[in-house]
Amino acid sequence: MKIGICSALACKLDDSLKYIGVDHGVEILLKQGIKPVFAIGDFDSIENENVLSELDIERLPTRKDVTDTHAALEYALENGYDEVDIYGVTGGRLDHFLSVMCLLEKYADKKIRIIDQQNVIQLLLPGTHKVYQDEYKYFSLYALDDAYIDIDGAEYPLNQYFLQRQDPLCVSNQVSCEIATITNSKPILLVKSKDA
Amino acid sequence: MKIGICSALACKLDDSLKYIGVDHGVEILLKQGIKPVFAIGDFDSIENENVLSELDIERLPTRKDVTDTHAALEYALENGYDEVDIYGVTGGRLDHFLSVMCLLEKYADKKIRIIDQQNVIQLLLPGTHKVYQDEYKYFSLYALDDAYIDIDGAEYPLNQYFLQRQDPLCVSNQVSCEIATITNSKPILLVKSKDA
Repeated sequence: MKIGICSALACKLDDSLKYIGVDHGVEILLKQGIKPVFAIGDFDSIENENVLSELDIERLPTRKDVTDTHAALEYALENGYDEVDIYGVTGGRLDHFLSVMCLLEKYADKKIRIIDQQNVIQLLLPGTHKVYQDEYKYFSLYALDDAYIDIDGAEYPLNQYFLQRQDPLCVSNQVSCEIATITNSKPILLVKSKDA
Repeated sequence: MKIGICSALACKLDDSLKYIGVDHGVEILLKQGIKPVFAIGDFDSIENENVLSELDIERLPTRKDVTDTHAALEYALENGYDEVDIYGVTGGRLDHFLSVMCLLEKYADKKIRIIDQQNVIQLLLPGTHKVYQDEYKYFSLYALDDAYIDIDGAEYPLNQYFLQRQDPLCVSNQVSCEIATITNSKPILLVKSKDA
């Protein structure tokens, strides 16, 4: 079951999804005509508190051990959503972005994606994965721990390449025909990107 | 010896630094009245090729194993600069950003920082480090490998906390008096951030 999380820096959203609004993300959803199924946060960045009155909300304390987006993700997972697209956490404060990157690994068994106007980031568990030719011209792979990588059907194919975390070799690859195939021995990050 | 690298997405620069311009970053430097000491890239994103005529440049092929920013960093390190501030690699295509993040670990023995208008990211080698109270309200720590962390002089102190890579607990801390002290058993990332 799939849901979106809309955080403070979101721009273009997939309007076929249901959303949880996080802090100022609630106002972004409402401006795009989307009523969030749930709103969560300390709401310290909300412009007009009145928008919260007709919503199902959870108000978090300002001083807490998790970020508002993290709390929203936990709410989604606890409520049976195992596929979550997170919007509005890139750009701006990169401490928040890197915290969400931690969550991709923390909840590696769920399908979590970080999405913005130029990028989709997700974790690939060990195994074989397909990357389709689509609006994202480039795909890149990053190791979390050292991993063996195979890439087929791409501009830069690889055969049992030992990808270390400090090695950016697998940036800006492209699907050469319709589908590229990636096989990885350890969890890795897949980033699909397009130019502005 | 310190130098800056100015890549395509840079905004506000420290004008007391000398710079290497990367691709469209060359034009950003020139618009801010800074003549780069060197320009590097495939220059596929440059608006006016004429600006290159009076500069010391290295033209890279479009198809290559390293990004233009990576090549600029290698140039800086080979030319004796051991302290490098990298501007213009955040936002936009996050594949490029994550590739530069790899380089912090690849060249962990150098002082490399990724800087934008709201953030400074750097790697801290194992040891004890000071964080000063300054324009950056928040500091956050992220593990690369599991690390033991001590934090003193901060809003959220820690004593021998076992920080794992998937754990975003150390986000948004604040220096409580003038200086906070961090001690880490393994290399970690320090992110200093401020609100917009």
